[in-house]
Amino acid sequence: MALTEVSCNKIFGGLQKVFSHKSKEVGCTMKFGVFVPPQAEENKKLPVIYWLSGLTCSEANFIEKSGAQRYAAIHGVIIVNPDTSPRGLNIPGDSESMDFGVGAGFYINATQSPWKDNYRMFSYVTKELIEIVNLNFPVAEGKQSIMGHSMGGHGALVCALKNPGLYKSVSAFAPISNPLKCSFGIKAFTGYLGPKETGTWSEWDATELVKKYSGPALELLIDQGMEDNFLKNQLLPENLMEACKNVSFPAILKKREGYDHSYYYVASFIGEHIEYHMKNLTK
Amino acid sequence: MALTEVSCNKIFGGLQKVFSHKSKEVGCTMKFGVFVPPQAEENKKLPVIYWLSGLTCSEANFIEKSGAQRYAAIHGVIIVNPDTSPRGLNIPGDSESMDFGVGAGFYINATQSPWKDNYRMFSYVTKELIEIVNLNFPVAEGKQSIMGHSMGGHGALVCALKNPGLYKSVSAFAPISNPLKCSFGIKAFTGYLGPKETGTWSEWDATELVKKYSGPALELLIDQGMEDNFLKNQLLPENLMEACKNVSFPAILKKREGYDHSYYYVASFIGEHIEYHMKNLTK
Repeated sequence: MALTEVSCNKIFGGLQKVFSHKSKEVGCTMKFGVFVPPQAEENKKLPVIYWLSGLTCSEANFIEKSGAQRYAAIHGVIIVNPDTSPRGLNIPGDSESMDFGVGAGFYINATQSPWKDNYRMFSYVTKELIEIVNLNFPVAEGKQSIMGHSMGGHGALVCALKNPGLYKSVSAFAPISNPLKCSFGIKAFTGYLGPKETGTWSEWDATELVKKYSGPALELLIDQGMEDNFLKNQLLPENLMEACKNVSFPAILKKREGYDHSYYYVASFIGEHIEYHMKNLTK
Repeated sequence: MALTEVSCNKIFGGLQKVFSHKSKEVGCTMKFGVFVPPQAEENKKLPVIYWLSGLTCSEANFIEKSGAQRYAAIHGVIIVNPDTSPRGLNIPGDSESMDFGVGAGFYINATQSPWKDNYRMFSYVTKELIEIVNLNFPVAEGKQSIMGHSMGGHGALVCALKNPGLYKSVSAFAPISNPLKCSFGIKAFTGYLGPKETGTWSEWDATELVKKYSGPALELLIDQGMEDNFLKNQLLPENLMEACKNVSFPAILKKREGYDHSYYYVASFIGEHIEYHMKNLTK
């Protein structure tokens, strides 16, 4: 589990680093970002927030465009953001579209060939990456939350809902809230999990998972730009909110008038989300 | 002078727009960014800060990576950032290196063929762009300041020093402070202005220009990361500070320990610079 430091830049008094390592779960070299805030110099153990990015992203988009480091430096929290899929494997069909394969791992564990040996982003994020981070950075173990954007917003919800108690809190910017019911999700699940008839799709859909969650109290913080081009056909947050309402699952939907799906939108509210997670991480 | 809106994204309550237009000064279609803060909705006339980017940048880098919109929204200031050179002209030799031609206009007016008809970024920034901005946005005329990074940091200094009174204040992140004395500058000046013997180079070098400045009181705010790889061989801020000292030109050098030349560094201090300019713009 040796890490190679790819880059290190000082920002807002902390260090934004990128590491690469050989992943057992996904069977290739993976990169991830780690922002280490200035408070780490005081030999403190710090909480950590994981960020999962959306379709087409690598680890770079969040690091360069979200502006999260400013808030993380104020609050003294480590932020870790993995890549969105395995890379460099050259599996036939892995680079033909923006919504499947490279850059589109959907944070699930595939069951179908030729994807099942590598497209295991769920286990990578919820097990291997946490082990690596706990071993290599000054993390207060167990003090972790998760958030994400679009495909990664849904990924954050699924990671939290399938691992009760693992994360202290979860939030999502413009998540693909009900992949069973939108074309991005149907394409990904068909490829990674097989046809709908396999019956496994609902294990990877947040709107289905809230219905059978059992574990420590958890609240879903959903954030949504109201001028988001994907809102009506792909994101479907109303389906998730309806499911939450039906089973009395605590959920908040923050509607942001005039905002779209971009990192300009994410940058505008990432400070609020970090503050939200810190409240839960310091309880 | 018709403008075409290329993009518009809501961020921090304001609008980050990109426009394209046909430029008379540089003879091609140019793009520039404009952040219009939320205060514009109140029908107020607002101050404006111009940002000049560095080598290899388009208008996109600053917009995506600086995080400036957050501070501009708080202070109620418009931020305008042009591209760094003409584009799409296919002048032989304009795309062979990162430090000459496309992405490397150096904010000067070239005198040598084949550059002199188009590489007129100085006139573009200090005349044409200001006219366009004043005509199309709710600008309090005359309430303008200028700042920039690297090549654009030097560009900001030169624009201010050659136009006494035009800008209320000027600041520069890691400027190429004395282009006469570094390889980036010597290459650019040789290409755009001809050999040193023409005697024109000093008209475009901030360290020379402070020696003969005559006009309203002006202060140079110079910002410099101390782990900047270009510091010793290309940026030479100590030459500028020495020249300022010799002629009692007010200048401040802010040294930032541990910071490099990247937008991670710019993002960390852009808020301070905007605050500095606002103090001068609201005097």
